[in-house]
Amino acid sequence: MSNKPKVSNAIIRRLPRYRRYLGHLQARGVRKVSSNELSEMIGYTASQIRQDLNTFGEFGQQGYGYEVDKLYKEINKILGLDREYKTVVVGVGNLGQAITNYTYYYKIGFNIMGLFDVNPKIIGNWINDVEVMDCAKLEEYVRNEKIDIGIICVNRENAQDVADKLVAGGVSGIWNFAPIDLVVPDNVALESVHLSDSLHALSFMIKNKAESAKNQ
Amino acid sequence: MSNKPKVSNAIIRRLPRYRRYLGHLQARGVRKVSSNELSEMIGYTASQIRQDLNTFGEFGQQGYGYEVDKLYKEINKILGLDREYKTVVVGVGNLGQAITNYTYYYKIGFNIMGLFDVNPKIIGNWINDVEVMDCAKLEEYVRNEKIDIGIICVNRENAQDVADKLVAGGVSGIWNFAPIDLVVPDNVALESVHLSDSLHALSFMIKNKAESAKNQ
Repeated sequence: MSNKPKVSNAIIRRLPRYRRYLGHLQARGVRKVSSNELSEMIGYTASQIRQDLNTFGEFGQQGYGYEVDKLYKEINKILGLDREYKTVVVGVGNLGQAITNYTYYYKIGFNIMGLFDVNPKIIGNWINDVEVMDCAKLEEYVRNEKIDIGIICVNRENAQDVADKLVAGGVSGIWNFAPIDLVVPDNVALESVHLSDSLHALSFMIKNKAESAKNQ
Repeated sequence: MSNKPKVSNAIIRRLPRYRRYLGHLQARGVRKVSSNELSEMIGYTASQIRQDLNTFGEFGQQGYGYEVDKLYKEINKILGLDREYKTVVVGVGNLGQAITNYTYYYKIGFNIMGLFDVNPKIIGNWINDVEVMDCAKLEEYVRNEKIDIGIICVNRENAQDVADKLVAGGVSGIWNFAPIDLVVPDNVALESVHLSDSLHALSFMIKNKAESAKNQ
């Protein structure tokens, strides 16, 4: 697959969703699913779904549908979820702890090896068998332990500095929760969760639904 | 504007981003910005930006650009951010507290009126001047206080039940952080933050960057 097509940002957003629904089907013991059934569950059109999945190869058979287990495994591979990632969380306030618990609880292939904070009251604490270390040691730790992913849960003011240290230590990716658009080199993957964007999309939908109701 | 075009999900995702960057410009005292300058900051093409903003009316002038303040205010209106929303948070664990602090700290028009939990150890506590109440009172509180938005920070197993109570109480929108696709009536706006989808998009990008590096 060295000549595979460039994958659009839109597909990157849809694939994890396919995976999630296939996981629900697996949990219910469902073995086969058609693109029409997937469409009803997920809300994309059946032709969109077929087109997306065709981007990566032939997983379905016309008139037969998709094998749930096989497709789930294939999507895992495509998403890079057939391996484990060594991860650190920087900033162990409520959000950092929530993300740590979330990752720990779901055991989703992202192993949290280290937690970091600048607050002396928190440094030395243990959360889910992981010690909170001093941020001053972050870059060295990331380098020595060959950490793959840094999760940034610090405030806006410190986020770029933390990102720079993670990059200097050699991470492959950053999962950013600080409300800022970070700058990282091209070879480092960056995914930001902008909570305000999501909240503002919600207020937009609320407004639109109110206006539609008025116009009916 | 009763005949306005149906707005695509993609634009709903881009508008909050425009707003965020315009806010940065405002904070720096910048008064005018061209679509090309916006394009460089945000990463969408200039023509995409012009097209998006034209969907809602004429905000720019050719060869002149956009007035930052005016455009910011207009986008606020479009997003329904020119009003306040009465909000409750259900589930006051680490994530619920993080979301509460976030909303409180940024004072972003979403007033948290009530916090709810089922844990007797937490009920009766105060967080940022708001009392944690018993979930049993949720529906009644939402109805009496005319709550607009319910933020769901409970676990997957209880999320639909909480959503049902919020809907029965009359909310206009739900901001869901539980890892489940909730079912709500058509007249209620639903925005879910699926953290795993975001994390899996990150692993996908990491994998792709590693493969691109290999192929060079």
